[in-house]
Amino acid sequence: MSIEMVLEEKNKCIQQYLEKLLPENEGYPIEIFEAMRYSLFAGGKRIRPILLLAACEVVGGDTKRAMPFAAAIEMIHTYSLIHDDLPAMDNDDYRRGKLTNHKVFGEDIAILAGDGLLHYAMEIMADACCKAESILEVKAMQAIAHGAGIYGMLAGQVVDVISEGKKIDEKTLQYIHEHKTAAMLQGALTAGAILGGADKDTISEFEEAGRKIGLAFQIADDILDVVSTQEELGKPVHSDERNGKTTYVTLFGVEKSKEIISQLSQETMKLWNKFGKRGNFLMELTEYLMDRRR
Amino acid sequence: MSIEMVLEEKNKCIQQYLEKLLPENEGYPIEIFEAMRYSLFAGGKRIRPILLLAACEVVGGDTKRAMPFAAAIEMIHTYSLIHDDLPAMDNDDYRRGKLTNHKVFGEDIAILAGDGLLHYAMEIMADACCKAESILEVKAMQAIAHGAGIYGMLAGQVVDVISEGKKIDEKTLQYIHEHKTAAMLQGALTAGAILGGADKDTISEFEEAGRKIGLAFQIADDILDVVSTQEELGKPVHSDERNGKTTYVTLFGVEKSKEIISQLSQETMKLWNKFGKRGNFLMELTEYLMDRRR
Repeated sequence: MSIEMVLEEKNKCIQQYLEKLLPENEGYPIEIFEAMRYSLFAGGKRIRPILLLAACEVVGGDTKRAMPFAAAIEMIHTYSLIHDDLPAMDNDDYRRGKLTNHKVFGEDIAILAGDGLLHYAMEIMADACCKAESILEVKAMQAIAHGAGIYGMLAGQVVDVISEGKKIDEKTLQYIHEHKTAAMLQGALTAGAILGGADKDTISEFEEAGRKIGLAFQIADDILDVVSTQEELGKPVHSDERNGKTTYVTLFGVEKSKEIISQLSQETMKLWNKFGKRGNFLMELTEYLMDRRR
Repeated sequence: MSIEMVLEEKNKCIQQYLEKLLPENEGYPIEIFEAMRYSLFAGGKRIRPILLLAACEVVGGDTKRAMPFAAAIEMIHTYSLIHDDLPAMDNDDYRRGKLTNHKVFGEDIAILAGDGLLHYAMEIMADACCKAESILEVKAMQAIAHGAGIYGMLAGQVVDVISEGKKIDEKTLQYIHEHKTAAMLQGALTAGAILGGADKDTISEFEEAGRKIGLAFQIADDILDVVSTQEELGKPVHSDERNGKTTYVTLFGVEKSKEIISQLSQETMKLWNKFGKRGNFLMELTEYLMDRRR
């Protein structure tokens, strides 16, 4: 089975779980539930929950236990996209080929839908912690909160915003990528490993793998913006150039950027190799994420 | 000692704790820490953390244990104000006599500062849960998450937004007040009681008290908007009327609204009475919150 098919299957499984948490035509006031659903079911690849579940599985854990956290991390990711697209932020009209949340529901509801998804993620994790009465759930929640928070994803978002239209150096760009993108992948892999019962050293290794995958994933994104078409990407291309954004491509060019990805990939593969055959899916997924044009 | 002086002292104690969590001139990128600090230290009365700590204390708990949750609930409250003031929402230029967050830092940073405070609240609570390794912390976090979330404060916020400029009935208005305001006071009192080791019935009673205080507090706010001056209130008065907002005053008039408050007050006092002398502070605080012009 191809990696795309495997991912599709895993996506469906997460989709079903999310559907149960936010069913259609349920909730009051319905406007906010519709707006949350709109972005949550807008065709995302569910990379973060898939990584979380894979990490849990590869260390020998039960993925059922990890489902609430997989759902929560996808909600946090979705909230960050909704707020990122707002007129006061990136001002994007399209995301994944569909109108952005505020274009459909208005800015006020879009702000609240983002807030709502973050709130709901917190609630789902707190509920799971209460139900399990185990420190592993609590630590998984901490890892996700840390990855998403003011020293993680949000910090990257902020540096990205304040760097807009400015020339930035490699260090700052790496900071943005490692925080805006990698921190959540680190949260996903760490939380999954924790819930799977991994030891401290393994958890640290997964965290480092998350950093590398996230950085490479984002460099791949920088490359895509240059070499893709709007049809392939589902959003306008060359937007980085138009916005005067510094990217790995503007700093190093496409070829050197690909080399950096290749280096990060090799280092990550070493970790997954330790798990023998069981590590196969994470190897394929890593490759897939770092070369997203296949 | 007057209730104002007692509150001032408790406020200082919470202030010091918050200062440790978000120290001046610390954090990267500094812009977001400054923006979060600006609103967090803008002269709020710290009603929610004070209620949380009082609930913990009155049932015989140690308030030190409750401090992280007191801090978290104040951060969540502050985030909700920042987002509420945004141009796409209430579009307020002033709050507590100071320029609103987006007027000082811009809309993009204000959105992120709000997000940041919600993230940080989650992180602080998750950290406290990990450290304590007790189910009480986890349940307190759940109570706060629930009070703030899509079935609590946020739902009230949304109904408030979609009701703007529309005539609404008493039921909807009560829904808004009970969710936008009361749900967080319920979260505060419930979390405090849980951390103090209260039994299930007591926790339920505290939750109901939070609903009543919150509703009465908000009706008092409706009254203040009509009978205050901008100087007293620290923000423009008669804004409800200008915005065509339905309030308890527009529905029932000032006198009848005062009667409803009085009824809610009496019912709440019965609960605090059960604690004898120890209940004094909560009685005074309840009175203070329901008659905020003293």
